[in-house]
Amino acid sequence: MQHPSPSLPASPTSNTSAPPVPPGSHARAVRTAVPGSTALATLDTLDTPAAIIALSRMQHNIARMQQRATALGVRFRPHVKTSKCAEVAAAQREAGATGITVSTLKEAEKFFGHGVTDILYAVGMAPHRLDHALDLRLRGCALQILTDSVEGAQAIVDHGRAHGHVFEVLVEIDTDGHRSGIKPDEDRLLDVGRVLHEGGMRLAGVLTHAGSSYDLHDTQAIADLTEQERAGCVLAANRLRGAGLPCPVVSVGSTPTALTATSLAGVTELRAGVYVFFDLVMCNVGVCGTDDIALSVLTTVIGHQADKGWAIVDAGWMAMSRDRGTAKQQRDYGYGQVCTMDGLPIAGYVLSAANQEHGIVSREGTPTDPIDKDIAMRFPTGTRLRILPNHACATGAQFPAYHALAQDGSLQTWGRFHGW
Amino acid sequence: MQHPSPSLPASPTSNTSAPPVPPGSHARAVRTAVPGSTALATLDTLDTPAAIIALSRMQHNIARMQQRATALGVRFRPHVKTSKCAEVAAAQREAGATGITVSTLKEAEKFFGHGVTDILYAVGMAPHRLDHALDLRLRGCALQILTDSVEGAQAIVDHGRAHGHVFEVLVEIDTDGHRSGIKPDEDRLLDVGRVLHEGGMRLAGVLTHAGSSYDLHDTQAIADLTEQERAGCVLAANRLRGAGLPCPVVSVGSTPTALTATSLAGVTELRAGVYVFFDLVMCNVGVCGTDDIALSVLTTVIGHQADKGWAIVDAGWMAMSRDRGTAKQQRDYGYGQVCTMDGLPIAGYVLSAANQEHGIVSREGTPTDPIDKDIAMRFPTGTRLRILPNHACATGAQFPAYHALAQDGSLQTWGRFHGW
Repeated sequence: MQHPSPSLPASPTSNTSAPPVPPGSHARAVRTAVPGSTALATLDTLDTPAAIIALSRMQHNIARMQQRATALGVRFRPHVKTSKCAEVAAAQREAGATGITVSTLKEAEKFFGHGVTDILYAVGMAPHRLDHALDLRLRGCALQILTDSVEGAQAIVDHGRAHGHVFEVLVEIDTDGHRSGIKPDEDRLLDVGRVLHEGGMRLAGVLTHAGSSYDLHDTQAIADLTEQERAGCVLAANRLRGAGLPCPVVSVGSTPTALTATSLAGVTELRAGVYVFFDLVMCNVGVCGTDDIALSVLTTVIGHQADKGWAIVDAGWMAMSRDRGTAKQQRDYGYGQVCTMDGLPIAGYVLSAANQEHGIVSREGTPTDPIDKDIAMRFPTGTRLRILPNHACATGAQFPAYHALAQDGSLQTWGRFHGW
Repeated sequence: MQHPSPSLPASPTSNTSAPPVPPGSHARAVRTAVPGSTALATLDTLDTPAAIIALSRMQHNIARMQQRATALGVRFRPHVKTSKCAEVAAAQREAGATGITVSTLKEAEKFFGHGVTDILYAVGMAPHRLDHALDLRLRGCALQILTDSVEGAQAIVDHGRAHGHVFEVLVEIDTDGHRSGIKPDEDRLLDVGRVLHEGGMRLAGVLTHAGSSYDLHDTQAIADLTEQERAGCVLAANRLRGAGLPCPVVSVGSTPTALTATSLAGVTELRAGVYVFFDLVMCNVGVCGTDDIALSVLTTVIGHQADKGWAIVDAGWMAMSRDRGTAKQQRDYGYGQVCTMDGLPIAGYVLSAANQEHGIVSREGTPTDPIDKDIAMRFPTGTRLRILPNHACATGAQFPAYHALAQDGSLQTWGRFHGW
């Protein structure tokens, strides 16, 4: 086996002692993919492509967001759709998070199975899923659900009454026009609230997500949207209260707005997801640096087209996902930023193109930039690289498991949910 | 539960009798996701989003390609990276396919586990995977491997000699400049052949894949590339033979070129992958119609933004994948073509945008087209739709299983491999 490193800082010394496995954790020490081998894997021996979580970066990101929420006087409810991983969510809760946000009932089932009971399902409730939601609640999961229409509210009321059950329901508010929700000043907000409350359900509050923040990069524009998200959601809450309806929860957030807010007056709960790993899209938005990105894809150079300045690696779009979120941003990283084994960006090199299981590493730039004719010497066959992703939620989903990398170089395998 | 259909042909009558399960198959009848239910699922009751295979279309696609290969006098070796599904590959073999092509050793392992022994691993062999390849071969898998460099060939020779084993190796030929491979007229082609042959390995032949055919749509341009792919690979084979080296296999193909070829003189084997399902990218290339597309995503309408002409569905990019392959083609389908439950396109409606678990169905067109203010009446909450994907390989990968739909409306669950 050959794993020459590029002429950049050396990898951490391989550590073959068993990494600590927390009690009750589903983590297990990683073994190499070579059949029959019992050696513990390191970044040098793990089969590729593989999804690597840099634990120190993840812990830093978790602490940063939790400290912001605490300083702003609100609860923090992380969105676990980014990681879909019990160990990651456990780290978020240990840092102070209150409950979790999910995007599918499968996530609710899985995390409930890991002992999480305070779960917000933040996608509009489809009537055909009410049986499943009820079943979760009857098994002890304090699942909150969401609606943004009178017919949706009525379906919840009808189902609750038919089964003698009081659902806890939030009303989805649209504060930036990007997706679902009721605008804060629409008449039907009160109609929905009344249907739920008078129908005997628990009207738990209002929720919004200013997802259009992902499209911004100007600091003032993000600050403006952050205030728009807060003010719109608080207005909706106050309109419900003014109509004599309860509205204890006012829940807002997206990673960019959560990290930009300086006041969350009237808000009770903050939500964010991708901050736990960050990614290149978030770098372009301006809320992190590349050295905050905790998720990367470990890959191996498998060949070259030297006359074109290409090194071919075994991370194609199946590993990186098809997400090209940076294509429309100020800096386009192709399918990802190329890094050393230590996770340090190799300036000027990106995954410029991808087939299903082939990625092309080349010098980034315009067609007039010189081709790197020495790429085969710089990145010989067998070289291992780490690629920072455009979009952590999309890249993570391509892998059945993460490999959590401690600072001593040891790895643990953390499972990840897939599908619905 | 409410599943109104759009005002279009009715769904097939639900069939609740048990679908036939072939002996030895890993298929199982589908049950609904509602806990405690024992009813067999249909498209009306299956939880969404779900990946649906229309069996009659898939069988038609398989027969069409096999007939072409047979008529052209070559063996056909389907690329199973598209489906990663034992039942789909079994249908391809039953129709006459000889062996399979894989893009990862995990695929090789999985299909070998299902009894397939004739496997071509069509990604350049990374030296660190030689142990695994050897292990597969020693267990009885006739795995062929690939290289396109002297150093890669030497690594194979060294590994084979060190273990007293003769690997079967193809040399990758680059006939269209899109990825890996040696150009047919390069000197190093003979160097690579000699290293393998004189090193005691079995030089099995040459292989090429004109993947740039996916970027074409002009009939003549595809025909020209088809001939370029054939002629380049045959030239490479003849150069090896002229140098006294063996070259029994001449393997070419991609879905567009395989369906365009009128002569494959000098070729022994054809390969193609996505043809088994087809997709919107292939429609734009011009090698299928939308009524050939066998893979679709079943989704449910969960809400509306009626003033914008949006119906919100529960198939977001996590279900469709982030693949936007039609964006650069003559017709951009957004994240997919909206169809009825019967798989018939609803003219003018696409999945125009997507968040992780939310898709936006709207009228396709230019900004000057009128907004569909009646979308909530056309597609009420609970309506079920099927979305044809841009890229079947990418969309399939988002699901742990397919639901194979027979013409009587019955469904079977077919598992799908994920990861590496």
